[in-house]
Amino acid sequence: MSAHSPAPATPVDNQLDRKAQAWSALFSEPMSELVQRYTASVDFDRRLWRADIEGSLAHAGMLHTQGLLSTEDHAAIERGMAQIRTEIESGSFEWKLALEDVHLNIEARLTQLVGDAGKRLHTGRSRNDQVATDVRLWLRAEIDELLPLLSALQLALVEVAERNVEVILPGFTHLQVAQPVSFGHHLLAYVEMFARDAERLTDVRKRVNRLPLGAAALAGTSYPLDRELVARTLGMEGVCQNSLDAVSDRDFAIEFSAAASLLMIHVSRFSEELILWMSQNYGFIDLADRFCTGSSIMPQKKNPDVPELARGKSGRVIGHLMGLLMLMKGQPLAYNKDNQEDKEPLFDTVDTLRDTLRIFAELAAGITVKPEAMERAALRGYATATDLADYLVKKGLPFRDAHEVVAHAVKDAIALGVDLSQLTLAQLRGYHAAIDEDVYAVLSLRGSLEARNTLGGTAPAQVRGQIARHRARLAI
Amino acid sequence: MSAHSPAPATPVDNQLDRKAQAWSALFSEPMSELVQRYTASVDFDRRLWRADIEGSLAHAGMLHTQGLLSTEDHAAIERGMAQIRTEIESGSFEWKLALEDVHLNIEARLTQLVGDAGKRLHTGRSRNDQVATDVRLWLRAEIDELLPLLSALQLALVEVAERNVEVILPGFTHLQVAQPVSFGHHLLAYVEMFARDAERLTDVRKRVNRLPLGAAALAGTSYPLDRELVARTLGMEGVCQNSLDAVSDRDFAIEFSAAASLLMIHVSRFSEELILWMSQNYGFIDLADRFCTGSSIMPQKKNPDVPELARGKSGRVIGHLMGLLMLMKGQPLAYNKDNQEDKEPLFDTVDTLRDTLRIFAELAAGITVKPEAMERAALRGYATATDLADYLVKKGLPFRDAHEVVAHAVKDAIALGVDLSQLTLAQLRGYHAAIDEDVYAVLSLRGSLEARNTLGGTAPAQVRGQIARHRARLAI
Amino acid sequence: MSAHSPAPATPVDNQLDRKAQAWSALFSEPMSELVQRYTASVDFDRRLWRADIEGSLAHAGMLHTQGLLSTEDHAAIERGMAQIRTEIESGSFEWKLALEDVHLNIEARLTQLVGDAGKRLHTGRSRNDQVATDVRLWLRAEIDELLPLLSALQLALVEVAERNVEVILPGFTHLQVAQPVSFGHHLLAYVEMFARDAERLTDVRKRVNRLPLGAAALAGTSYPLDRELVARTLGMEGVCQNSLDAVSDRDFAIEFSAAASLLMIHVSRFSEELILWMSQNYGFIDLADRFCTGSSIMPQKKNPDVPELARGKSGRVIGHLMGLLMLMKGQPLAYNKDNQEDKEPLFDTVDTLRDTLRIFAELAAGITVKPEAMERAALRGYATATDLADYLVKKGLPFRDAHEVVAHAVKDAIALGVDLSQLTLAQLRGYHAAIDEDVYAVLSLRGSLEARNTLGGTAPAQVRGQIARHRARLAI
Amino acid sequence: MSAHSPAPATPVDNQLDRKAQAWSALFSEPMSELVQRYTASVDFDRRLWRADIEGSLAHAGMLHTQGLLSTEDHAAIERGMAQIRTEIESGSFEWKLALEDVHLNIEARLTQLVGDAGKRLHTGRSRNDQVATDVRLWLRAEIDELLPLLSALQLALVEVAERNVEVILPGFTHLQVAQPVSFGHHLLAYVEMFARDAERLTDVRKRVNRLPLGAAALAGTSYPLDRELVARTLGMEGVCQNSLDAVSDRDFAIEFSAAASLLMIHVSRFSEELILWMSQNYGFIDLADRFCTGSSIMPQKKNPDVPELARGKSGRVIGHLMGLLMLMKGQPLAYNKDNQEDKEPLFDTVDTLRDTLRIFAELAAGITVKPEAMERAALRGYATATDLADYLVKKGLPFRDAHEVVAHAVKDAIALGVDLSQLTLAQLRGYHAAIDEDVYAVLSLRGSLEARNTLGGTAPAQVRGQIARHRARLAI
Repeated sequence: MSAHSPAPATPVDNQLDRKAQAWSALFSEPMSELVQRYTASVDFDRRLWRADIEGSLAHAGMLHTQGLLSTEDHAAIERGMAQIRTEIESGSFEWKLALEDVHLNIEARLTQLVGDAGKRLHTGRSRNDQVATDVRLWLRAEIDELLPLLSALQLALVEVAERNVEVILPGFTHLQVAQPVSFGHHLLAYVEMFARDAERLTDVRKRVNRLPLGAAALAGTSYPLDRELVARTLGMEGVCQNSLDAVSDRDFAIEFSAAASLLMIHVSRFSEELILWMSQNYGFIDLADRFCTGSSIMPQKKNPDVPELARGKSGRVIGHLMGLLMLMKGQPLAYNKDNQEDKEPLFDTVDTLRDTLRIFAELAAGITVKPEAMERAALRGYATATDLADYLVKKGLPFRDAHEVVAHAVKDAIALGVDLSQLTLAQLRGYHAAIDEDVYAVLSLRGSLEARNTLGGTAPAQVRGQIARHRARLAI
Repeated sequence: MSAHSPAPATPVDNQLDRKAQAWSALFSEPMSELVQRYTASVDFDRRLWRADIEGSLAHAGMLHTQGLLSTEDHAAIERGMAQIRTEIESGSFEWKLALEDVHLNIEARLTQLVGDAGKRLHTGRSRNDQVATDVRLWLRAEIDELLPLLSALQLALVEVAERNVEVILPGFTHLQVAQPVSFGHHLLAYVEMFARDAERLTDVRKRVNRLPLGAAALAGTSYPLDRELVARTLGMEGVCQNSLDAVSDRDFAIEFSAAASLLMIHVSRFSEELILWMSQNYGFIDLADRFCTGSSIMPQKKNPDVPELARGKSGRVIGHLMGLLMLMKGQPLAYNKDNQEDKEPLFDTVDTLRDTLRIFAELAAGITVKPEAMERAALRGYATATDLADYLVKKGLPFRDAHEVVAHAVKDAIALGVDLSQLTLAQLRGYHAAIDEDVYAVLSLRGSLEARNTLGGTAPAQVRGQIARHRARLAI
Repeated sequence: MSAHSPAPATPVDNQLDRKAQAWSALFSEPMSELVQRYTASVDFDRRLWRADIEGSLAHAGMLHTQGLLSTEDHAAIERGMAQIRTEIESGSFEWKLALEDVHLNIEARLTQLVGDAGKRLHTGRSRNDQVATDVRLWLRAEIDELLPLLSALQLALVEVAERNVEVILPGFTHLQVAQPVSFGHHLLAYVEMFARDAERLTDVRKRVNRLPLGAAALAGTSYPLDRELVARTLGMEGVCQNSLDAVSDRDFAIEFSAAASLLMIHVSRFSEELILWMSQNYGFIDLADRFCTGSSIMPQKKNPDVPELARGKSGRVIGHLMGLLMLMKGQPLAYNKDNQEDKEPLFDTVDTLRDTLRIFAELAAGITVKPEAMERAALRGYATATDLADYLVKKGLPFRDAHEVVAHAVKDAIALGVDLSQLTLAQLRGYHAAIDEDVYAVLSLRGSLEARNTLGGTAPAQVRGQIARHRARLAI
Repeated sequence: MSAHSPAPATPVDNQLDRKAQAWSALFSEPMSELVQRYTASVDFDRRLWRADIEGSLAHAGMLHTQGLLSTEDHAAIERGMAQIRTEIESGSFEWKLALEDVHLNIEARLTQLVGDAGKRLHTGRSRNDQVATDVRLWLRAEIDELLPLLSALQLALVEVAERNVEVILPGFTHLQVAQPVSFGHHLLAYVEMFARDAERLTDVRKRVNRLPLGAAALAGTSYPLDRELVARTLGMEGVCQNSLDAVSDRDFAIEFSAAASLLMIHVSRFSEELILWMSQNYGFIDLADRFCTGSSIMPQKKNPDVPELARGKSGRVIGHLMGLLMLMKGQPLAYNKDNQEDKEPLFDTVDTLRDTLRIFAELAAGITVKPEAMERAALRGYATATDLADYLVKKGLPFRDAHEVVAHAVKDAIALGVDLSQLTLAQLRGYHAAIDEDVYAVLSLRGSLEARNTLGGTAPAQVRGQIARHRARLAI
């Protein structure tokens, strides 16, 4: 990316047309074709066209206000840009590799359409600050689309949670049965994660939403620009305060990628659980057929393709984060061509997030819960052993002794292949005489669940409270 | 990490003493020695001891307030913890590998010191929520130390900038001379970067500063805890609202690592420039001898070891970020032992940041600037060619024609081995008749510098304004 | 990716046509459109078409040899595949998203063209082993194209080295002038690196070149296949010996990416040096205009876009490596849909390598060397100070004393702004009386260069020897 | 790292003792304490001491052979080094931070012990080539320890496989039951992976095992060294052919880390499966108690800590790989201080591998297999549905029709909650009249297993063949 020209004072034949021969009088030969292909970005950066036009119009408006652009030229630029917008939307715009990037393609077309006025648009800016502005505008718009998708996903999970507050799942630590938890409570853990992702994206947005335009090539410009006016026009929260930083900073892209990576980590964890839960050995849930594929060789197969693929896509997004960090490492100021490599990973990250969030909101809504299987599994793992220990403590035993007593009981129950609650009172009393008929209430999954009734705990009352909080929070 | 016991009601011999034989009645053999070494964390997590004690005291205070701990026991715990604090600070505390981690080491010692009261401390918590709380408290304290270091570094840079507002450096794009910039302006670009790092750390701190304690093993607890009281005592901004998320979330560690990675990217870029500037071919600066080493074979050597090493350390911090993301990928809820691997990268990241920030603040203050070499270099690269083009535009030429005219002049000047300002008026007029005596003012570096007098530009007036803004911002 | 069907014994309407309604009788609804788009791979994996056809033909040939496919069917398949090959090459082949991937697209078309014979092709294989085979065949072919490109780049560097054996460059350590080196010698360091890259790719190729086909879905097949015959037909060096590993292994992709990452690290280092050398402060080289761009705002600019972009592209390739490692982490056996994510990073890595190697071979040939600037720079850094110390040692001084003597001399020379060789004999004798007229021979760059005449050293004789070795090595 | 001195001709007081004041006459102040701590490496690189001594002795021997070191000095150095070895082994050696690194520490002690002879050891070498040699020697020795550990792990898996050839596990794709496989066969998939890891380490070793010594600081040396003699003495396979590359190359470290990363990916996959298999919902295996921990709060817990932690440690090793790649990106030649950062990640990677391999060999031997649970699970997933389809094909049905017939049968069996083999003949005939009594043989897991009797397939005969091959291969 090189700095680009201010508009010429009088009409000339377009220098861009002569680029095929040589960059300028300084150059003795044209760019090799291989180099042209290697260095051009229009194949991917054309995607920035809306932001490019938006930024140009704000710049033109300011030039006009500052007396640097006549009313006629301003009108011509607005008219030309309107047409270019139509052409691009309709697919009739002709993108040219020889014009390198989205900026030159649009500028060249504008000059074709409105003549000298088009050449005056570039006054006081360069491609260095222009591309930084475009990427920021584009990314801001994408964040503004991602945030509602994140809300929709949270809401979908809240709804499934609400239907399953009373459903008991074995809570795992180390993937070993630990204590019974409400399935609704379990799903709300993911709502917390996605809520943090939204917080982070909102923080990132602040730093995305600052204006580099006016930094020109690297040092600022000699034209009396009003950068704050442009920022206001574009809805930006501030102006980049140092021209060298403005054109060389890609923190916002990396920060976004880091937030995206965390989001995909959450998706990978949820996916892992969906895959586990749908495997025959768990059988806790079923996913709607429309999210699955079969096998053309194995007639019994129904595969959870979507969560598997999403789990895999965490690698893609995190790989991009790594690539962007590597890109910026050790770069001297100000703009270097390396930075052109920031776009493809960023674009792919946004696409991956958008598709994944959308599909997971639908997927969540299509989960069929199998409460019996969950409950059966909870029983299998002696999930109320802690409750039995607590029972003995209340009967006067020191916890450590109680712990050992229960460990013995569990050991024998494993050998017998029964749950603690299936031991007879006589058997249980064999472990400790203080055990009485009322122990069976304690050994129930539901009793255990209800007992954990503090803030953030799994008791249904708590879970309902959280659901209400999330609904209020998301009802914007 | 496994959930840990509530305190027993009556004194027992410490179960922890029997761990050497077997974990519990359920286990038929002790942990193998190799496994013990592989899984123990006390060698590194002992570093959390202050946070562990702080968290325990807040927990004990709340238990007392809630009537779950007697006044005597509370006092005993406070007394015991005070002694443990002294022992650790004095180096007399004996850390035991067999006690696995910092939590069990401190708890076992507490019980030794104050008996049953020590065993009652663990009521309503587990190691799962305890370690999450400890790491958060520790990281918050570290962030609170890093932020002033970041300010000090910014201030050091502002001071060097202030002394060098009028010093002219060739501004580079593509490492080719582009336009003259103020050396002070250039340094302020880094102040912007480090200011963003501080912003990000402040955002991260919000999400670090939430309380997992009370989530117990994974599902909450049956004791009537007041989690918000504990949060207030510990100065935390909120309570983790979902117990499963509370014990399994490591977002805060990853988010911190991502912010640290960006910070180190900035350090790597600044280091790259310091190394370049100090190389003989640039010769723009000298670093104080105390930051350099010589060579025992080459008597003329003075090497910029500190920026080189710091540039290299960006790899270390970013490697840790990647490791943490890999760690969490695909983990099912809730706590898994994998998570023990979160600490060493986090510790090393904090250490690297602290040392690097401290050393760079000193290093910046020790930079000797060589204005003549900078100016000479700016002249070498035809840095005012754009100004000549602008001059011609003001004389009526279209910019594209002016650009070509200047390209011809530059080509010839290169051949002659002179700067544009060294061409005679006759020579210059050979390129265009409109050129007059006043062109030499335009061709001066200083003229070019002064001209870029818009917000964020390199004109000394702008740079002074920025310095004032930074001083005000940092004067807290 | 799911296992795919053996061919039906008698003609049926194609099940693939009914996929739009539901995967099989087991499914109650079609795949949602969003899911279809999210999970389809044909947009990128169509690139494997040559390998897919090659693998299918080898499979068909073996089925025929084993008596599992009639001569007529075999001929029909060969005929059909020839036509498909023509269609794809000419661009007339219609790729369908609904058919998911390259395999089903080709199979469906084959069945259209040759009826039942097409359906018999899939006997004893599944898409799981088919795609693994395709990617390996494709990657092997790509490695076989990359290796000559690597040789060509080495050869181009050897040629520039040969022309510059006697050109003296300041050798740097810590980017500080260290000792004079031959520019040819310096370039040969990169030849060593690229030679190691070729070694590594050759090692990777061995492990790429093994046959998964015959593993079927995951467990092998009940048809009496001759897998070793297929391996021989396809020129593969071995057969994957475990069916579960065969379909789930992606080591070869990661190993290739790791080798590619190292190659790009070498490119990034060479690029860094080219950019430095072409910056005005070095001015050691010039790059041919066809590899550079100008700036449309700054008429004097000629930017080294290609090495900058290549340096940036190291991030892309290393990001892909990270993504692939993340992808495979924690995946249970055997095939999971996650693995579909292996292709895009691999494709992009190969493309990046191919373009970069090709362009760098051209770029190297287009380097203009500026020997005077290099020599001037070598003089600037007291590059022969070590030689003066050695001279004093030969005159009887202990090295440590000699080192200190020279350090004093260098310090004064810096203050005077002269090179050691510009000090008068009287001045030099001021440091030590043993110094004599013959010292000036020692203080010359060329004398220093010639002295380092051991294996691997920079003496021109050594460099010429290395050039001869490389030429012999590369002359295949 | 800076180049280090040749030995002085006559005794001097050790320059190293004066380093506390200043590096040399060129320096006006000592290194700041903070800088000393930041840049010193002796805290971690002391680990290289054996390699450092080994390399020095080989160098000394060659100097003697070449007539550059007297017989007495040579003997003195050998004597001194023997004593240093004893001191380090016994822990009495005093490591000094002020002496920066392992090299200066050992050299200073040697000079203390044997006087001038010690100062002559450094003739013709620098720390730049010395440290590169040390790391290579050290890493070669570590690889030579890792390879037998890899063999031991493979052997342990082969042994468990051998005991479980006939045990039937549900083979999964997409974690859905696919087809029955032998548990032995499943374990052998990991043997394949670890065998590839050994192959890769062997390839890496070739490139590790080359000699940089003799490259001196960067340009070679003027002493008539015999580098090939040193290589032979050290058992190295070759000599680094370019001095600049020799001191700056860290490919071997990165290549090793990449191989280590793949190894840890395999460990992560195996760990994931062990954790799944040991979860109550699978219940396929039990791990020996000595590899597990309990929970001090939940008496029923037995957690698979080792595989969980190992899964997590994949992040650590891959993070180091990323760090090393980042480290080298964009480094100009030759040696830069950045490179000092190569050691800690490499050391930690080796430690992690060694511990993990050792513990997994033990862990594998301690697996208790639960064949009934595996078989029950295989029955649960309609694992023989493919076999029923094949049966119908043999009865004359086209495969696609057969596939649909079986899909209907599976759908009904799911609804009934029975396996296909539990349907009555009448019921089965309802799907197709061709079904006969002999179908029940086909529907058996064992029948399905035996049928897959081709190379690499899961039939017990194949698995036994593979075991024999592995035993032969590993019996070295």
